Amino acid sequence: MTDSVKYLLPEDKLPKAWYNLAADLPAPLPPPLHPGTLQPVTADDLAPIFPRAVIEQEMTQERWVEIPEPVCEVYRLWRPAPLIRARRLEKALDTPARIYFKYEGVSPAGSHKPNSAVPQAFYNKQEGVKRLATETGAGQWGSSLAFAGSLFGLEVEIYMVRISYNQKPYRRALMETYGARCIASPSPLTNAGRAILEKSPESNGSLGIAISEAVEVAATRDDTKYALGSVLNHVCLHQTVIGEEAILQMEMAGDRPDVVIACTGGGSNFAGLAFPYIRENLKNGGKTRVVGVEPASCPSLTRGRYAYDFGDTGHLTPLTKMHTLGSTFMPPGSHAGGLRYHGMSAMVSHVKELGLMEARAYWQTECFAAAVQFARAEGIVPAPESSHAIKGAIDEALRCKAEGKAETILFNLSGHGHFDMQAYTDFFAGNLRDVAFEEEELKAALEALPKVG
Amino acid sequence: MTDSVKYLLPEDKLPKAWYNLAADLPAPLPPPLHPGTLQPVTADDLAPIFPRAVIEQEMTQERWVEIPEPVCEVYRLWRPAPLIRARRLEKALDTPARIYFKYEGVSPAGSHKPNSAVPQAFYNKQEGVKRLATETGAGQWGSSLAFAGSLFGLEVEIYMVRISYNQKPYRRALMETYGARCIASPSPLTNAGRAILEKSPESNGSLGIAISEAVEVAATRDDTKYALGSVLNHVCLHQTVIGEEAILQMEMAGDRPDVVIACTGGGSNFAGLAFPYIRENLKNGGKTRVVGVEPASCPSLTRGRYAYDFGDTGHLTPLTKMHTLGSTFMPPGSHAGGLRYHGMSAMVSHVKELGLMEARAYWQTECFAAAVQFARAEGIVPAPESSHAIKGAIDEALRCKAEGKAETILFNLSGHGHFDMQAYTDFFAGNLRDVAFEEEELKAALEALPKVG
Repeated sequence: MTDSVKYLLPEDKLPKAWYNLAADLPAPLPPPLHPGTLQPVTADDLAPIFPRAVIEQEMTQERWVEIPEPVCEVYRLWRPAPLIRARRLEKALDTPARIYFKYEGVSPAGSHKPNSAVPQAFYNKQEGVKRLATETGAGQWGSSLAFAGSLFGLEVEIYMVRISYNQKPYRRALMETYGARCIASPSPLTNAGRAILEKSPESNGSLGIAISEAVEVAATRDDTKYALGSVLNHVCLHQTVIGEEAILQMEMAGDRPDVVIACTGGGSNFAGLAFPYIRENLKNGGKTRVVGVEPASCPSLTRGRYAYDFGDTGHLTPLTKMHTLGSTFMPPGSHAGGLRYHGMSAMVSHVKELGLMEARAYWQTECFAAAVQFARAEGIVPAPESSHAIKGAIDEALRCKAEGKAETILFNLSGHGHFDMQAYTDFFAGNLRDVAFEEEELKAALEALPKVG
Repeated sequence: MTDSVKYLLPEDKLPKAWYNLAADLPAPLPPPLHPGTLQPVTADDLAPIFPRAVIEQEMTQERWVEIPEPVCEVYRLWRPAPLIRARRLEKALDTPARIYFKYEGVSPAGSHKPNSAVPQAFYNKQEGVKRLATETGAGQWGSSLAFAGSLFGLEVEIYMVRISYNQKPYRRALMETYGARCIASPSPLTNAGRAILEKSPESNGSLGIAISEAVEVAATRDDTKYALGSVLNHVCLHQTVIGEEAILQMEMAGDRPDVVIACTGGGSNFAGLAFPYIRENLKNGGKTRVVGVEPASCPSLTRGRYAYDFGDTGHLTPLTKMHTLGSTFMPPGSHAGGLRYHGMSAMVSHVKELGLMEARAYWQTECFAAAVQFARAEGIVPAPESSHAIKGAIDEALRCKAEGKAETILFNLSGHGHFDMQAYTDFFAGNLRDVAFEEEELKAALEALPKVG
């Protein structure tokens, strides 16, 4: 091992291709189904809402997908992203473990999300699309697509979950600085939004509702396509640039991870770091433990059912086999808005079913305590979502201490918390609560799952 | 020239020493004077408020000052900072000029300020100091010292200009996340603060007042020293790590700047980029133009008098020969709080008098327009302070276009604007105004200057 604090790759070591785990899975991924016919979705089914290149990537079995040069050129604004050895955190924990983190907060939008926003904007532009519609929860995806749209000259319309829209005016300001239009969801602009507003005029919204609105706009307007920031195969694919870089950087450090940790909401930042390591495990019979960390208030991997379900509340999307709490489940509010989603990426869910990963759930207050400890040691204030990975890493480091093991821990710090400081204010004021869902509500949502396969 | 987007130095190219322009000045810097005796300030005069090592650096004539290894170790969390070629901005401006920027927003606190906060915290810790008192305007310095204090185990008490304290709760939250205590200034905790509050209970505060409070705390408490984030020689010294890196990175790019641009408030980020280039100019009879950009609402370099004046409102500091609007001058409010200071670094002022730099002033709305154009081209949302440098760089690039000259422009992007999004919201809503000071007020403040030298 070297003594460096951080490991930087030169620009010419930026990966040339994204990695597609589908090519190496020991069992094929259950296909998404058309909600009308219950037949596997075809490329034609998806054509109204996605550009052709993205649909191909969604379905491809190729192991490597080349990153187009115009995408690389934008990636190079912040990529390769640093790998940092958290020596001060190790010292604070008095652990024999070595802790590394991959830091995605260096992107212009402050998270890993531009890794997919940039190629999605590029492919749409290439195919003559003028406008993109999308949804955003905490605002990380929305600001990333706004950023990508500004670089490629696309209009971007963002349906932002109303509670976040109201709580996070500065996220909105960021999207507007990039030239995007930001709309509180549910909105009166779509049938999906109007239907919700008729029943619940004061609705706080949810990711599921916002997805319905954005998909509807894309499906009904010729000049507009839809872009999704997580969950789908092509999004997981784009994010693997994280793990491919990390593998090279861990080599620079002369070390290799015993355990790899990332938070999981829709699954994209987890996939980004973890899938390349799962490949290495499958190839070499490797023993790197791979851990996904989710919020206890919205625990799809640890409490959800592995079943076909809709990705949205309005039931416009295909049915996907995934770990789900039910598309009618309304997760309690929390500051990790980016993890507040009823479902999970089909590929991540499949990986979990195949026993290729572990999952665990934490409450937000213990995650914020970990985030503050991390900030005071390493200087970076994490996003609430990322704090789940930090809590996971700290727990592993403390286990190493208890067991006297000098293991190597690698986690993904998916973003900074500069737009989430109200959460820190609430935490210090003692106003942050851990809100559990009602078991009855989860039961009802699971019972309402579509009866498929 | 290479085709890269950004130029990264490996960790082992981190400069080993800071550069002291005092060693190369063609005329010596006028000394600071004790306000009682009007004699040059001695190290003993400063001993109550600064640690010995910092006082030595304030007074040294040595050309190079070694960066201690524990400081380098912290610097390596984000340094060397990237140099980025703004190709998309060049294209948007349709200019033959090549535009580069040094990006200091990658530091944990989001600006160049930790370059001095870290060594100041280190030297204080080394000499057994327990607590640091300081002031902050926009919050960049306060959060940087809070960050540095957390790494070295020092308590940090920050007097924050009241208007910023109220307008920027998230800056406060950032300081508190690092474990610091943040107090609205003027405060009832000091004589200086109480004196202001008696006269003006609703006072919005100013940097001059907040400095008085922090200095008083340091002067009256044995366990506490004072730390200043700009203006002084040792702060300019620490910031030269920016320019030393930039020189190496411009070599990597196979290019050299015809003009170097930075914003100027107290002068530290300007000094950081510019002083190493001024050395090159002095050594080689070089022709790099060096430009400082300041707010038209607080234009010390372009409208101030070069005279001895106090650094604070309470008149506790030494008298310094500098460009000043008068310590009784109250600059109109603006979103570039970090540039809202009546005086200017003595060294920067001296450099201006020697004809080694140019200065110009811009209004905030034209700077925000430049910032938005930059954000949409390069993805980074700049701090309001840094937007002054961007406006300067864009104007130079447009001049190059008009003159058909392919010059090379380098500017310092001193920080990101994640904690300044209200300013962008105001800008988009058309609520941002350019507030000029009253000429009569400037005249009165200049007439009230101490009669010295």
